[in-house]
Amino acid sequence: MGERLYNFSAGPAALPVPVLEKARDEMLCLPGVGASLMEISHRSPAFDEIINAAEANLRKLLDISDDYAVLFLQGGSRLQFSMIPMNLMGAGNKKADYLVTGSWSKKAVAEAKKVGDVNIAYDSSDSNFDHVPDQSQLNLTDDAAYLYYCCNETIQGVQFSSEPTPPAGVPLVCDASSDFLHRKLDMDKYGMVYACAQKNAGPAGVTIVIMKKELAERSDKGLASYLNYNTHIDENSMGNTPPTFAIYINKLVTDWLLDEFGTLDKMFEQNQSKAAMLYEVIDSKSDFYTGHAKPGSRSVMNVAFRLPNDDLSAKFLAESKAAGLTDLKGHRSVGGIRASIYNAMPVAGVEKLRDFMIDFSDKNS
Amino acid sequence: MGERLYNFSAGPAALPVPVLEKARDEMLCLPGVGASLMEISHRSPAFDEIINAAEANLRKLLDISDDYAVLFLQGGSRLQFSMIPMNLMGAGNKKADYLVTGSWSKKAVAEAKKVGDVNIAYDSSDSNFDHVPDQSQLNLTDDAAYLYYCCNETIQGVQFSSEPTPPAGVPLVCDASSDFLHRKLDMDKYGMVYACAQKNAGPAGVTIVIMKKELAERSDKGLASYLNYNTHIDENSMGNTPPTFAIYINKLVTDWLLDEFGTLDKMFEQNQSKAAMLYEVIDSKSDFYTGHAKPGSRSVMNVAFRLPNDDLSAKFLAESKAAGLTDLKGHRSVGGIRASIYNAMPVAGVEKLRDFMIDFSDKNS
Repeated sequence: MGERLYNFSAGPAALPVPVLEKARDEMLCLPGVGASLMEISHRSPAFDEIINAAEANLRKLLDISDDYAVLFLQGGSRLQFSMIPMNLMGAGNKKADYLVTGSWSKKAVAEAKKVGDVNIAYDSSDSNFDHVPDQSQLNLTDDAAYLYYCCNETIQGVQFSSEPTPPAGVPLVCDASSDFLHRKLDMDKYGMVYACAQKNAGPAGVTIVIMKKELAERSDKGLASYLNYNTHIDENSMGNTPPTFAIYINKLVTDWLLDEFGTLDKMFEQNQSKAAMLYEVIDSKSDFYTGHAKPGSRSVMNVAFRLPNDDLSAKFLAESKAAGLTDLKGHRSVGGIRASIYNAMPVAGVEKLRDFMIDFSDKNS
Repeated sequence: MGERLYNFSAGPAALPVPVLEKARDEMLCLPGVGASLMEISHRSPAFDEIINAAEANLRKLLDISDDYAVLFLQGGSRLQFSMIPMNLMGAGNKKADYLVTGSWSKKAVAEAKKVGDVNIAYDSSDSNFDHVPDQSQLNLTDDAAYLYYCCNETIQGVQFSSEPTPPAGVPLVCDASSDFLHRKLDMDKYGMVYACAQKNAGPAGVTIVIMKKELAERSDKGLASYLNYNTHIDENSMGNTPPTFAIYINKLVTDWLLDEFGTLDKMFEQNQSKAAMLYEVIDSKSDFYTGHAKPGSRSVMNVAFRLPNDDLSAKFLAESKAAGLTDLKGHRSVGGIRASIYNAMPVAGVEKLRDFMIDFSDKNS
């Protein structure tokens, strides 16, 4: 079987070990059910309990009011890129504002343009997406259908530390795929937050959508059923068979957050201190390491940096892997190294990477 | 933890025990990888090996030629109900033929009507979907974009024993969600076959689409990326993060089919003999049990039958559950009992149900 290593994959990403252990122990038989979770009807009392607990955990962790629906969907962010404009650009208003701060928000724009008019309210592509804007830099539209942004760009490792503020009456829509549940959100500021689960919330195959129910009133009744948020709101994510195993893992992950940390404020403290360990090395060894994100825009989840040249990057990857630190290769559009340190990455794993980085720069400077 | 029972759920449904055991054993650490399958990138060599093996297994079992793409998608049949007309009703031809033989083909029609014109080439709703038609009963359109049917209606337990034949040049599109891999198909007869996995092919959360690549040439480039089959064909199901764990289970299920049965002909023999055991009881105790499907249309996968009255049905459900036979309740639209006996239901489970049925009718007649 082999030993578990510290896995810095950007996603699908590391899960908490107690979650994996419970999934392993229950794989052949969910207690009292006589079958695996994968083998039972999504309409069974046993699964009902699981999906309700998953939703209740999310409502507790993020303090989500009843004005919002919590949905478990399929199709990933990619399908949300399309469902959002299809539903929220209502018949009367086919224009929306988008902030383009990295690869994922850029892809979202491409899909939105197939549905309506997109105003790019900010674009940092000229600097290869190395920062997020200040509020004063945004070119917002007063009557936009919504303002869309991605709060953490996984590839570039840039993150908003607080929400942009849309004009009065314009709902804020956020792709939180790669930092969902890393801190508490002030949900009242959002019309909708969504996240594919495979970073902080579970395995690939389920996308969590938290949306103000009143926003779904805009959806055209002629939309395909699966693409209409109302289908999922009305049927409590059971408009069709949901991805039951992925939802079960999300339930176990949020159980772990509550058991281990209690609140997302506590989780956030640990995330900040993990990220600080790596950025401190980057700053103190600035002749050797160059962070991609500008200091005010640095992601707490994805730490992207470069070495002096490609040969040293390759050496870094080979030696870190030999030391039990895996999946550190940066995305080709940024190059270098990317350490994804989501909630489930233990402090000990980040400490080991920090020590490796110091040692590597000392030996190769 | 408790003992495993014989679980006749219509879906998500029983999986082979060796599949669950392997998933359990590899849950914390995929051999040689240092992490769970759920924790590794879909672009990693380890996952690449798994998705390629899953596809190769399907190609081997069904003898699928290179003219066809094999795709692993999300959104279930419900999303296919919409994607099929969105893609295959090309710009020039917005009409298709549909056979309505049960609840699922009826739902498919409702979605197709949002996209184009639907000709109902056959409809058995007047007899509460108790049979499938003969070829001579079909009212087909010579220049339809495609002919759509559902080869096994899970709720009503009616099944086509052979494919309907469309007019020359009209591709046949088949929803095989609830009998996929139960027998070999003559793939050359199909333009497209699809199946959500949670009956015979894996857990909920992945939908397998096998389609002639040339059909995807019809798709409008303006379609949302996720909804366009070309995205998935061009990127080998990696247009976005696929549901990696569900694909892994599909790979294990098809490994099991190859290891245990070798061919789908062997699997089909066992499926026929399992179904015959239950239909023989229904026929020999015809004063007590009434099958829903007419004899020529009986499903080998879902055996739906009624008892003389609702009180006896309730008693049957309670006593069968106490005997370790679970999830036998029929769908509310048909009533009575439904035994779903997919590939993974052991012969011993069907024998136990058969013996229970004989005993129950003897005691309660």
